[in-house]
Amino acid sequence: MKKFDLVIKNGTVVTASEMFSADVGVQDGKIVAIAKNIEADADEVYDAAGKLVLPGALDVHTHLAMPFGGTISSDSYLSGTRAAACGGVTTVFDYPVQHTGETIRGVIAEKKAVLEKEACVDFASHCCITDLSDGAIIEEMEEAVKEGITSFKCFLVYKKEGWMVSDGTLAKLMLRARELGAMINVHAENPDLIDMYTEQFLKEGKTSAWYHYMSRPEFVEAEADKRAVHWSKHLDAPLYLVHMADKEGLEACLQAKEEGAPVFVETCPQYLEFTCDVYKREDGRNFVCSPPIKGQESQDALWKAIKNGSIDTVATDHCPFQSYEKDWGKDDFTKIPNGCSGIENLYPYMLDAANSGKISFQRAVELCSTNPAKIFGCDQKGSIAVGKDADIVIYDKDKDFTVSVDTMHSDCDHTIWEGKKLHGYPVRTFLRGNVVYADGEFKGTPGMGQFVKRSPRKLR
Amino acid sequence: MKKFDLVIKNGTVVTASEMFSADVGVQDGKIVAIAKNIEADADEVYDAAGKLVLPGALDVHTHLAMPFGGTISSDSYLSGTRAAACGGVTTVFDYPVQHTGETIRGVIAEKKAVLEKEACVDFASHCCITDLSDGAIIEEMEEAVKEGITSFKCFLVYKKEGWMVSDGTLAKLMLRARELGAMINVHAENPDLIDMYTEQFLKEGKTSAWYHYMSRPEFVEAEADKRAVHWSKHLDAPLYLVHMADKEGLEACLQAKEEGAPVFVETCPQYLEFTCDVYKREDGRNFVCSPPIKGQESQDALWKAIKNGSIDTVATDHCPFQSYEKDWGKDDFTKIPNGCSGIENLYPYMLDAANSGKISFQRAVELCSTNPAKIFGCDQKGSIAVGKDADIVIYDKDKDFTVSVDTMHSDCDHTIWEGKKLHGYPVRTFLRGNVVYADGEFKGTPGMGQFVKRSPRKLR
Amino acid sequence: MKKFDLVIKNGTVVTASEMFSADVGVQDGKIVAIAKNIEADADEVYDAAGKLVLPGALDVHTHLAMPFGGTISSDSYLSGTRAAACGGVTTVFDYPVQHTGETIRGVIAEKKAVLEKEACVDFASHCCITDLSDGAIIEEMEEAVKEGITSFKCFLVYKKEGWMVSDGTLAKLMLRARELGAMINVHAENPDLIDMYTEQFLKEGKTSAWYHYMSRPEFVEAEADKRAVHWSKHLDAPLYLVHMADKEGLEACLQAKEEGAPVFVETCPQYLEFTCDVYKREDGRNFVCSPPIKGQESQDALWKAIKNGSIDTVATDHCPFQSYEKDWGKDDFTKIPNGCSGIENLYPYMLDAANSGKISFQRAVELCSTNPAKIFGCDQKGSIAVGKDADIVIYDKDKDFTVSVDTMHSDCDHTIWEGKKLHGYPVRTFLRGNVVYADGEFKGTPGMGQFVKRSPRKLR
Amino acid sequence: MKKFDLVIKNGTVVTASEMFSADVGVQDGKIVAIAKNIEADADEVYDAAGKLVLPGALDVHTHLAMPFGGTISSDSYLSGTRAAACGGVTTVFDYPVQHTGETIRGVIAEKKAVLEKEACVDFASHCCITDLSDGAIIEEMEEAVKEGITSFKCFLVYKKEGWMVSDGTLAKLMLRARELGAMINVHAENPDLIDMYTEQFLKEGKTSAWYHYMSRPEFVEAEADKRAVHWSKHLDAPLYLVHMADKEGLEACLQAKEEGAPVFVETCPQYLEFTCDVYKREDGRNFVCSPPIKGQESQDALWKAIKNGSIDTVATDHCPFQSYEKDWGKDDFTKIPNGCSGIENLYPYMLDAANSGKISFQRAVELCSTNPAKIFGCDQKGSIAVGKDADIVIYDKDKDFTVSVDTMHSDCDHTIWEGKKLHGYPVRTFLRGNVVYADGEFKGTPGMGQFVKRSPRKLR
Repeated sequence: MKKFDLVIKNGTVVTASEMFSADVGVQDGKIVAIAKNIEADADEVYDAAGKLVLPGALDVHTHLAMPFGGTISSDSYLSGTRAAACGGVTTVFDYPVQHTGETIRGVIAEKKAVLEKEACVDFASHCCITDLSDGAIIEEMEEAVKEGITSFKCFLVYKKEGWMVSDGTLAKLMLRARELGAMINVHAENPDLIDMYTEQFLKEGKTSAWYHYMSRPEFVEAEADKRAVHWSKHLDAPLYLVHMADKEGLEACLQAKEEGAPVFVETCPQYLEFTCDVYKREDGRNFVCSPPIKGQESQDALWKAIKNGSIDTVATDHCPFQSYEKDWGKDDFTKIPNGCSGIENLYPYMLDAANSGKISFQRAVELCSTNPAKIFGCDQKGSIAVGKDADIVIYDKDKDFTVSVDTMHSDCDHTIWEGKKLHGYPVRTFLRGNVVYADGEFKGTPGMGQFVKRSPRKLR
Repeated sequence: MKKFDLVIKNGTVVTASEMFSADVGVQDGKIVAIAKNIEADADEVYDAAGKLVLPGALDVHTHLAMPFGGTISSDSYLSGTRAAACGGVTTVFDYPVQHTGETIRGVIAEKKAVLEKEACVDFASHCCITDLSDGAIIEEMEEAVKEGITSFKCFLVYKKEGWMVSDGTLAKLMLRARELGAMINVHAENPDLIDMYTEQFLKEGKTSAWYHYMSRPEFVEAEADKRAVHWSKHLDAPLYLVHMADKEGLEACLQAKEEGAPVFVETCPQYLEFTCDVYKREDGRNFVCSPPIKGQESQDALWKAIKNGSIDTVATDHCPFQSYEKDWGKDDFTKIPNGCSGIENLYPYMLDAANSGKISFQRAVELCSTNPAKIFGCDQKGSIAVGKDADIVIYDKDKDFTVSVDTMHSDCDHTIWEGKKLHGYPVRTFLRGNVVYADGEFKGTPGMGQFVKRSPRKLR
Repeated sequence: MKKFDLVIKNGTVVTASEMFSADVGVQDGKIVAIAKNIEADADEVYDAAGKLVLPGALDVHTHLAMPFGGTISSDSYLSGTRAAACGGVTTVFDYPVQHTGETIRGVIAEKKAVLEKEACVDFASHCCITDLSDGAIIEEMEEAVKEGITSFKCFLVYKKEGWMVSDGTLAKLMLRARELGAMINVHAENPDLIDMYTEQFLKEGKTSAWYHYMSRPEFVEAEADKRAVHWSKHLDAPLYLVHMADKEGLEACLQAKEEGAPVFVETCPQYLEFTCDVYKREDGRNFVCSPPIKGQESQDALWKAIKNGSIDTVATDHCPFQSYEKDWGKDDFTKIPNGCSGIENLYPYMLDAANSGKISFQRAVELCSTNPAKIFGCDQKGSIAVGKDADIVIYDKDKDFTVSVDTMHSDCDHTIWEGKKLHGYPVRTFLRGNVVYADGEFKGTPGMGQFVKRSPRKLR
Repeated sequence: MKKFDLVIKNGTVVTASEMFSADVGVQDGKIVAIAKNIEADADEVYDAAGKLVLPGALDVHTHLAMPFGGTISSDSYLSGTRAAACGGVTTVFDYPVQHTGETIRGVIAEKKAVLEKEACVDFASHCCITDLSDGAIIEEMEEAVKEGITSFKCFLVYKKEGWMVSDGTLAKLMLRARELGAMINVHAENPDLIDMYTEQFLKEGKTSAWYHYMSRPEFVEAEADKRAVHWSKHLDAPLYLVHMADKEGLEACLQAKEEGAPVFVETCPQYLEFTCDVYKREDGRNFVCSPPIKGQESQDALWKAIKNGSIDTVATDHCPFQSYEKDWGKDDFTKIPNGCSGIENLYPYMLDAANSGKISFQRAVELCSTNPAKIFGCDQKGSIAVGKDADIVIYDKDKDFTVSVDTMHSDCDHTIWEGKKLHGYPVRTFLRGNVVYADGEFKGTPGMGQFVKRSPRKLR
């Protein structure tokens, strides 16, 4: 047997379905052996005794360097993917936006050029479609899918921003995606009701962060969730609902899944950890994101679905803004840039839930790694299995960690996770066999991240 | 690296979540290495090029040598487990019955004595409880669980036979099982309605096999399903519904699962392949089993749940009778011994469904191997993973096979599966690394099967 | 036009669907004219100016002089129907019990003999069937229906008391009732779970009234509700669920009604007014009835169904016991005779709900009079309409009234309604045109009540 | 007693809840007496022996003389209301459309001017709002309600026609209606999907009437139904869904009603009688209306809801076009003017359903008369009760009638009801005591119809 580049010894491997003691051998960036005892020579041997050996997470929902809310989200491709690596995320999906007249591949190519220089972990892009450009986009999708861009996003909100698509555009994209084995991601909120409430609150002088939530309450998200799911079910076309945050919408998704609709559901750690009560806090504006965090009933429903297998993925919607930017909305919630950080907290948070017994470690791996990889066609990612990329996280179940802006690797001056105590923490991250993070320190190099060419979904 | 006992080379390994090319190395009956290329020496090398390498199936629902219907089911422990091996089943669960005054361990020990001599694959037993014997059974359960007997069955039917338990007994067993990390399996049908209809039909001279179905129609099963699930949900106690065959009951289960109830659902190949129309055939009596096979709507609902992940396991309820025994009921459906064969057809049938694209191979493995192993605590079974028992099936996707009583290894003179064409078939079965079946021939030895000591479920 | 016996002038007539100003003319005990202005002569003219003119209520659920809980319910046929009259109830349904070997008509005849002497309002009987007596009861039902006994009750509880019927008996009765245009009433609770909890609580020394509730919690009622409804739906046979008290069971009923099942639902004022918290009171035992009063969620669900039209009737389950009898269970909840008074409170309570705007007066009339009359075939009862019996209640919307044992007309030394403040109260009751109650005083004569011969339901 | 203008003797009066023999006395256009035997003098005595005496129907959904589909619907206010009278409809609601810049009262006044000259029965108008005109409409609603215009309609479809309102406009109108005790009616279909399919079919040369249905299938209506109901439930604001035609939308409504949402549902005879198969007929274009008639499953669901009380009203959506106009779409379904006749068939059709035992006569009256009157605040209409307008229909249960364009009184040269055989038919219609129809002949005078000033709903 050829000498290994890396052997991880004595750890406990976790996959979406199993947990077992084994050594893991890596060659040329790939996992090539999983065995009871690997005795062959290796350039590097890492002793994982007492530790878990996990597949790297895929954060399939981030917004890096994104122009939004009158500014640009604070994490660059470099700082964002650096933070990812330090949180055990080895693949990051970005959401560049296509505007009228632009092409999918043009938009992606532009971002790719930057990412190839800056990315510290592997990367892919969903492309947000805002306009079909007289059918040119529908045409181009085939080529895009061939190039490995297999998912597209529609906003059912951000009407004034010009991002919203009509139901007609959504339906056409869903049908086209179905044809091509691609996926349509949807951000579901109803802009009309948001505008109605916002106008009313501003008139009434209700301007605190609490009114961000009050203008986008549970049912305003749920309507759009239900509508998107309705199309998916009746068009028999794949739908991925991003950042599900409310109970009623979630239940509509689960009902549709039971009935056989190709619906997939993502939620985010902020919806699992906090409730809308945070918007009553003095620093409530720092928690402002869209959809807003909902009430206890919704959080309970989300956790139930996390536990019983109904939710498919957890991702972050990472989109941080600096404090001074958040402060713009101190006296007017409509001026708060929407978004929070999370990319470095995703995996530790879900693994802490496993460590405390809320879910199994297998389920945490499934939610953060295996399922995202499968749903979005990352064939080389998402598991500790022979032939996969050696994206591996070493997790110390006994390490206590308290989140603080000082120990995070984002380029943001605060975090909503400040003070969160975690039991268990990643101590090392390998990207295709290379160390990119170890014991609190970023160890990678900008530009080492590679574009992930994705496969279309098998047609049913 | 120590020499391997067995290396399976060049195959495509399938687990419940992945499918990848790898060699598999076995030592001392265990899987010790999964690697891109195993070059070490081996006593035996099997070239699986072009073939799938699957974990052996667990048939968690069989009745071997069971006194029932005025006779004894025709497969002995020997012939039944021999057929199992030839169908890719490497672990068989039997259902011995405790009667008033008997103990769990007494009942199991008696069967174990026979099995240790006859079993051709590994084995375990669920114990059917028919009487609490003044609380002695409740007491004894703790010891039984310690000895690895972690599942118990209640009949909600067979009232006249003295097997039925009351809701009170069921509830007590469920609460006790919950406490011990054990599982309660339930056969759900309502005896009163069956008796009412049976009496009526016999009076009216309606005696053909069709009236077996008509006396136990969909809603008569559904009532008991719903009742069992109701207790599970409200007592928060684990429930495993065996041989689910009707839509309404299934939907109640899935609803309860969504709500977080610890409910698990098994169905059988006969409910997926046939409809109640078989009872109108001249040989309808050969299909008589309980619960009977239902209408198209139920079959469709079962397949939907197989596809969308809601059903947990497929097992056979294997309980064959010879033709002359089935003939007893030619002119009176109540005299037909209830039960059909299936132990050798389970895995080929579900893998054929995968091969034809109805489900994925991963899902077939999950249903027949990984899930049964997890649900019933067989820690060493259910996956191709380092440390598991080397229970391995080699599956040729391209081999065509037509089921016939002549090529089956049961001790029964007919099969309901006669003439069923399958695309793809198992060509070899390894039990803990030993060949027990190859290319149509049984290659094992009676008595090589071992008792599987099971772990209790983790308490929530 | 012939002279009237009675004219009620200037009132506001309320029916189940309308409310309008009109005079009402009565001759020979019947309503013969409803007109804007009746000027004809009359023996008696009652000026109802400013008051409502309502049809008398039917309390279709009472237990008078019933042997139960080791004693006899404290209201005789005389005192119970006297109280009824004073509360605006002009027809009372009793629940005599058939035991093994007894006939329906024998049981009813015996009660009728007493009622003909004692009844102060009109009366009918549902017959509780506890045993089919080898089919004789099934046979006899036809004759019973011809004689106007068109409803029968099954207990799914009271197993030890010998009252419970099996699902088989229930199904046979339902199918027979369907054939005859009769109705099966069901008391739904699961005895096995009750016994299990009771045994446990007594063992643990938990003996207060609170444990009456804890041994019969929501889900223990709901299981039996769901089972009864399941049979109704699938046998397409009429079912009347008495004293519905829990949310989950109610929802199953409403679901079945939506699907077209012939299900009717009754609840009682005690379930609408109180919650299980009363069992924590020192006098909790006085509230002990079966099924017990449930939690807030159930109360809310009941009110929602009262408001949206889903519940069909409100009746009382009137079954009072004297304080000294209730005291038997001071230290052991199993020794408390089950039952409370209510017959005089039903109509005032529901009309108060209308007066306060919770429901309309038409809905109160529908629930307490029109629907019970229709469901149970009392063709002459249930409305202010030409041709109906002149069972009329004059209701003063402005009269304030506080319930007290001193002002009630039952033969019971306490009432759970003590202190209940009502806005609006009946000031006069006419039974077939005769005054039986006026301004707080009973004005009738025992024996003036007549047997109500009921019509079968029209077959669908 | 004053002499009566009219006495209807010996008939059987039917109200929404009762059916009884009585004479009915009329003075000054009002019902003033209902009595067993009216002996007083009368100007006119009608002997209704053997016949039913019913309240006149309210057809709360018609489009008379409406500019639509490039022409004007063929029935004028005169011919439409004439046909109404001959079909037992004594109140007709029209749907004038407010366009940008117009006021509610301006629109209504214009129509009223014509109606006062032409109407043969009483009339009211819902006002279709297409534009809030910068809030002026919201303001004006208060005055409109005071003037008796208490219902407003929103289209969720007809986007290109400029009639569609956004969800924001709908929500604002619903909240305002809630405040004023008014009602929002909604036509629910999703325009985007319709446009998508239409474009596709035209491209593919699929131009027959069948593609009208195919471009607006069940789920395209259901989405908008569900959305409208979602707003009603969460804004707690009244919603009246017009012409419900599909199962999934209906079920969402019924679910919401169960949950307490103030939702009301109307369907039309064409959805109860036909299925989408009519669009395959050569004359399929004559059946083209929007929403189109759906499949058997939807028809079955509608009938179930008609039977179990869940649907509130039946009205016609009467909007006929001449054959030559329908022919415009012979080779292009998009050119067929949408709409069918029905105003004269509504009551006979629903009464025939009662006569054949599908529903009760009381339920037919409730659906066509009592409920529409209540829901839309016509206090003087909807029942045979003292004080109501003497809008009375005499129905001969034994008269056979076959619908034919020759015997209809519409100004349209065909009818979708041609050849429909009815058992039972109206033989006389009284409008406020005056004969407007007798034995097949119109007997009224244009202009005798009066404006119905409606009351706001009581606020909850």
